[in-house]
Amino acid sequence: MKHEISCAWAGDMAFEAEVSGHKVRLDADEAVGGKDTGPRPKPLLLAALAGCSGMDVISILKKMREPITWFDMRVSGELTEEHPKYYSSIKITYLFKASDKLKDENVRKAVTLSQEKYCGVSALLKKAIPVEWEIVYK
Amino acid sequence: MKHEISCAWAGDMAFEAEVSGHKVRLDADEAVGGKDTGPRPKPLLLAALAGCSGMDVISILKKMREPITWFDMRVSGELTEEHPKYYSSIKITYLFKASDKLKDENVRKAVTLSQEKYCGVSALLKKAIPVEWEIVYK
Repeated sequence: MKHEISCAWAGDMAFEAEVSGHKVRLDADEAVGGKDTGPRPKPLLLAALAGCSGMDVISILKKMREPITWFDMRVSGELTEEHPKYYSSIKITYLFKASDKLKDENVRKAVTLSQEKYCGVSALLKKAIPVEWEIVYK
Repeated sequence: MKHEISCAWAGDMAFEAEVSGHKVRLDADEAVGGKDTGPRPKPLLLAALAGCSGMDVISILKKMREPITWFDMRVSGELTEEHPKYYSSIKITYLFKASDKLKDENVRKAVTLSQEKYCGVSALLKKAIPVEWEIVYK
C-alpha cells in the first residue's frame, strides 16, 4: 500500500499541501522570507507523530470502556546544531485528567501498545532516533 | 534548540494540534471511527517532508535568480504490510514548468543541496529508510 500527497508552491516561502483531501498550508518565519501563514514543516512532523499515537490511545481506551473526557499531548524535539538541522531526540508527554479516574494500568497499556505495536510514525522515527514518552495526570 | 507542539483530543478520533501558533486539525477515516474533518497523521509526515525541502529549493532558486513561476511536488510513501505500518521507502518528485526555462544545472543543484545539506526532515528520515527523488519538467 502507498500514500501520496501533493505540495504546491504558493508564492514567497508558502506551500499548500493536499493530504487525504484536505488542504494544509505551510509557511516560513518572517525572519527567513516567509509570511507565517501556516505552520513550519519541521514541527508539523511532531504533530503527525502526536496525531498518529493519540488516535491509537483514544481508540484503545474507548475499547477498554475507560471514561475519558480529556486528553492532550506535548511533543518536543531536540534539534542538532549543524546543518542539516534535524531532531536528534523526541519526547512525547501524554496528559490525562486525574478527575477522569482512569485505570492507570489501562492508560499505560494503551500508550505502550501504541508506542510498541501500532503507531507507524513512531516506529519509523525510532529507527532513526530515540523517542521517549511519559504519562502525566493533571 | 528545541521545538514543541501540543495536540489536544477533539472528540471521536479528531485532534487539534498547535504548531508554530497555527491550528492543524487531524482526523481518521470514517471506516475507523473518524469523521474525516482533517488529514490523516501518517501522510501529514509526507507533507512536512515536502514543505521542508520545497522551502529550501525555492529559497536557493530565488538566490540564483532563476525565473521560477510554478513549482509542485508529489511525495509517495510505501507502507509495510504488518503492524506497525510505517513508510519503508519514500519518493519525492519535484515538478517544474518547462516553459519557465530554468537552468537544469541550477535546479539540480538546488534540489541536491536541500536533500544533502539543508532539509532536516529528509536527513532524519534518511537515517531510517531510503528517500529517493527525481526532477520532472512538465
